[in-house]
Amino acid sequence: MNYPKAFEELIISFRKLPGVGAKTAERYAYAVLDMKEDQVDMFIKSIHDSFHTLCTCKVCGNLTDKEVCDICEDTNRDNTTMCVVTKAKDIIAIEKSGTYQGVYHVLDGEISTTKGILPEDIRIKELLDRITSETKEVILATNPTVDGETTALYLGKLLKNKEVNVTRLAHGLPMGGHLDYADELTLIKAMEGRKKI
Amino acid sequence: MNYPKAFEELIISFRKLPGVGAKTAERYAYAVLDMKEDQVDMFIKSIHDSFHTLCTCKVCGNLTDKEVCDICEDTNRDNTTMCVVTKAKDIIAIEKSGTYQGVYHVLDGEISTTKGILPEDIRIKELLDRITSETKEVILATNPTVDGETTALYLGKLLKNKEVNVTRLAHGLPMGGHLDYADELTLIKAMEGRKKI
Repeated sequence: MNYPKAFEELIISFRKLPGVGAKTAERYAYAVLDMKEDQVDMFIKSIHDSFHTLCTCKVCGNLTDKEVCDICEDTNRDNTTMCVVTKAKDIIAIEKSGTYQGVYHVLDGEISTTKGILPEDIRIKELLDRITSETKEVILATNPTVDGETTALYLGKLLKNKEVNVTRLAHGLPMGGHLDYADELTLIKAMEGRKKI
Repeated sequence: MNYPKAFEELIISFRKLPGVGAKTAERYAYAVLDMKEDQVDMFIKSIHDSFHTLCTCKVCGNLTDKEVCDICEDTNRDNTTMCVVTKAKDIIAIEKSGTYQGVYHVLDGEISTTKGILPEDIRIKELLDRITSETKEVILATNPTVDGETTALYLGKLLKNKEVNVTRLAHGLPMGGHLDYADELTLIKAMEGRKKI
């Protein structure tokens, strides 16, 4: 005996999500049966609308349901500073910190020798097109990983002959963490980047 | 800046699933955007159909999309043996093992003093109604946990004055496991239940 067809398909669908195995998918499927009707309606509607109405901002590549995203439309933002991120979700992380008032550019990936992702596979050309005489600073906020560093180095070289300050986010100990839990590379970066108080 | 409304709602929906936090829900939501259209259609349809067409079998309480489930409808099954399980998903687990040819009864819960679940809250009355003069054996396949044992003990007492054999699944070392990983209680049960070879 197997599960009814709809339920089997629901389990298969949940298994498509990252890191979800057979047991977890089954658990999620049972959870759907226990939901209230309005929750199920919202779930279905949000999947449909997210898939069919969301697109990338034609200016910066951010996730949006309009042609141009809220940030690019916002005239109060500082157009002279551009923060380059790997994925649209990095924008949300930086926005939540409330520390940045400039605009963004989403690369939609990182150069990776292991995954075979080349500079032309990500939105580097679009980045270069957006850097004008007005641009004063480009902040490279790619991930502090091998691929992220490779991408930052590559962009750093590309932007050398443009008249902009190219900066990189600081590396060091994460706030609220414990020193003895920090990995060696983080400690090396923290030591290198030490500041006079 | 926040995510577009549909995407926020999708994240909220995923957070309703058991054990899913903010970061995981966000990851799942992005995964939906990367799905193919037919996958999204199947996801939506399976949520809709599972929620709206699935019900419990009116005989045994199994999950089904019909009035009576496949197992109860199957005339080849042995009606004289009834396996009592906590949840419908336990049926799938036993069916997969291919070891059992009788019928099932889903309690839909276990008696729990900590959670305040009383005997009248689960399908015990329905179980008693199903035990007829034809029934030869009732296998109590509740979980080997405190609540599962409590439920089995309670049912054992209830069924004492009925003319049926009441049995309980064997406890012991799980196959393929290592002895030094087994907990004390499992080892005690394995020792108690030792068999002559």
